[in-house]
Formats: sequence, structure tokens, C-alpha cells
Amino acid sequence: MAAFPVTERNRVKREHERGRYDRASVFAILDAGFLCHVAYVLDGQPYCTPTIHWRDGDMLYWHGSSASRMLRHLKAGASACLTVSHLDGLVLARSGFNHSANYRSAMCFGTARIVDDPQEKALALEAIVERYFPGRQAALRATTAQEVKATTVIGMRIDEASAKIRAKNVGDDELDGEQPVWAGVVPVRTVVEPVQPSPRLLPGLAPGADLDAYRPGRELGDVLVELQQAYGQRPVVAA
Amino acid sequence: MAAFPVTERNRVKREHERGRYDRASVFAILDAGFLCHVAYVLDGQPYCTPTIHWRDGDMLYWHGSSASRMLRHLKAGASACLTVSHLDGLVLARSGFNHSANYRSAMCFGTARIVDDPQEKALALEAIVERYFPGRQAALRATTAQEVKATTVIGMRIDEASAKIRAKNVGDDELDGEQPVWAGVVPVRTVVEPVQPSPRLLPGLAPGADLDAYRPGRELGDVLVELQQAYGQRPVVAA
Repeated sequence: MAAFPVTERNRVKREHERGRYDRASVFAILDAGFLCHVAYVLDGQPYCTPTIHWRDGDMLYWHGSSASRMLRHLKAGASACLTVSHLDGLVLARSGFNHSANYRSAMCFGTARIVDDPQEKALALEAIVERYFPGRQAALRATTAQEVKATTVIGMRIDEASAKIRAKNVGDDELDGEQPVWAGVVPVRTVVEPVQPSPRLLPGLAPGADLDAYRPGRELGDVLVELQQAYGQRPVVAA
Repeated sequence: MAAFPVTERNRVKREHERGRYDRASVFAILDAGFLCHVAYVLDGQPYCTPTIHWRDGDMLYWHGSSASRMLRHLKAGASACLTVSHLDGLVLARSGFNHSANYRSAMCFGTARIVDDPQEKALALEAIVERYFPGRQAALRATTAQEVKATTVIGMRIDEASAKIRAKNVGDDELDGEQPVWAGVVPVRTVVEPVQPSPRLLPGLAPGADLDAYRPGRELGDVLVELQQAYGQRPVVAA
């Protein structure tokens, strides 16, 4: 769990005192998110695509996106940057300049490749269910060969990464304390709501143990970090 | 309020039935977000940078980011893609293949430029406060020339954009209804929490009318859309 190397690519420049490069900080932010954004370049044009990600050690996986078209033709892969961000609060200062946000973000750099190896792809497709809903895979209708073929999985080893965190109240200039205006933080939280069953549900079916962690009112990020930790500690089953 | 043109760049390819190109759909998603992600290319390397954005018609503005270094040397501007995404729920199907997410995302393409014009920059810096906290600017300590100089504002006219929305329960295959496993949606919501005053607050100061919309428990996106609409209808004051 050492730190990622710091290079010209991942070094935090603006507000650099907020930057961190250790795996624990980066992974905590990645694991607390269900959505990520991936930047890649196609014919010189940058694209910023939102998608669902999951992590296995230093490997990041995500679902097929517009990048698939490009990657299909690039056996060697293509440079990408995957970012996960969380908004924690709006910060109101006594000057316009010191208004800010509380947030946690992680930027990861590496080479994105289509996951073609059948075993790696099968494991990745199982992981996207099991990492978020432990034990669920066994209860599902089996995936068909056609479905595996229709799904594009993209994998990227994290070569470099940085985390950036602001988590404090107002950082006013010293002399601004006398300005007669309220200052402080409006915190925001992303929370789990009560489940909405499928309208076609078979009689007698209630949410299973795979949803135990998603108790209404919990912060989604807390649930996701807890599930990732459990997933990383799952027993290795002989094939 | 017509639609954006549809080109090879912004056409929604994957799950294309979820795509929309009208300004109302795109703006509703942009305006519901406080954080965006911007993709740009620097020396062939894609970057995906989270930042705060605000909108004035077809113009998007955001705060200085690592892109500033690049843009400073590119008077003609650089291609960028600004994306705002909202996660609304995790969708659990009866097969791994049909697991999904409910979400709303908007991708905007254009040419990003540093806002150098003093009047446009002053208006943009005022807007970032007023659009989120109406009436607040007048109560703040005045911005100094040094602060304006230290702030980089980037502007981009939206040339093309697309919205992508999934907002429904499980879309199982027809034959999967008999699979004896719970299916449905775990909704998630990003909500406003009670304010946390600055520890250095002058005695007797309570949150002002600029925070009226941020009532605890409200969905942040609803608050931000409401405030953007009010901002767009503000009376024009003679200079």
C-alpha cells in the first residue's frame, strides 16, 4: 500500500496542499463512488464519459463506452484518465474569492485496454455484481455467451494517481472576520432511499442479504467502501 | 430553446434510445449539478478534471484547473468536453447482464478559452456567487484586483451537446421473470444537510435569504435548478 509515483502528469498543482498520493487515500475515494468519469482522446477530440467502475487492487474496470470503438482498433491500448469525485459541501466565505466546495476526488492515469481474455472478462463481469451485491451472482439467471459478447469491459492498471481533498470550514483571509455576513458550510450527502421492487416481482420475494448494506438513510459512499473491503477479503474458492 | 445539432461527436451510440439533444433536457442536467468533469488533452494525454461550473445561456464557465496552463498559451482555445452526471439509483435485474443504473448525464462539446475580457470576467465571477446564492454578492467584502488576477475563469460556448437518461425500473428480458430473485431499484438522493456556521462567526449572524432555498432534506439538484431559473430571470440593472 505504498504511494503512487508523483510525475508531471499526476502532481497536484492548484491548491497543492490538498493533494495526496498514497493508495489508501486514492482507493477510499474510488471505492466510495459508483459513477466515474473517463477522459480519452479520439481523433484529437477529448471525450468525458460517465460510466460505472469497479476496482481490483491497482486494476480499474469499467463498462463499454464510446471509447470502445476506438479501443477495438488499438490493441496496444490508449491513454485514459479515470476520475471519481464526491461533493461534500458548499463553502460560503465573507469574500467571493474564498467561496469554495468541500470535495474528495481521485484522478487515475494509465493505458485502457479492451478485456479480451475470456477468464479475465468472466471474472470482471462477475465482480461488477459481487462487488456491489455480495452473493447475488449465484441467485441470478446464468449469463449467456451472447451477453458476454455484447458486453465490452475495459481495464486499466493505475500507473499514477492523485487524490485531492478539501474538508474544512471557511478559509477566510484574516481581515475578513469583521465582514457582517453569515459564513459557513452547507453540507450535502448522497444517501440510500427505500428500495422500489420490480412491478413484476414473484410473490413472496423480499430483498436478499445482497442488499443488507443498503439501509435507507445510510451514506452511499460508506456502503460502497464497506462492500469493497468485504469483496477484497472474500475467500478464494478453488475452481 | 431548439435542439443542439447532432453530429458524429455528440450522437449517443450505446443505448441510443436514452439520448436527447434538446436544450431543455441538457440544461436541466447541467443546472442540477454543482460539480462537473472537464476532459481536455495536453500533449496527447487526456485529463479528466472535476471542477465547479455555471451556465449563462449556451455559455459554460468553470474555475481555473490544470488546463489553465495549456489554455494560457492557446489564444485560439482548445477542444474540451464538459460532463455533468447524476446517479439516481442502482438497478438490480434477474440476470447480471441487465443490472444497470438510473442516471442523468449531459456531455457538452466546444472550444474552451481563458476569459480575459475584464467585463466578461467580472460578470462571470459575480455569477458564480449570485447563481448559487442570490443576493449574496452585495453583502461580501469587495473582490480585490489581486484576487481577480489570481482567479482563472474558463469559458466555453456549447457547440454540441447530448443528454442521456435512464429513469425506470428493471428492464429484464421477457423470460427472466420466473427467476426467483428479488429485483428492483435502490434509489439514491443527494440532499442538503443543516448548515455548519463558521467557528469565527460574528455574534447575531444567522444564514441570510441567499440560503433560503437550501432547506435541509431537499434534493440538491432541485435547489440548484430552481436557483438557476431565478438567476436567468433576474432583472437587468442599469450600470
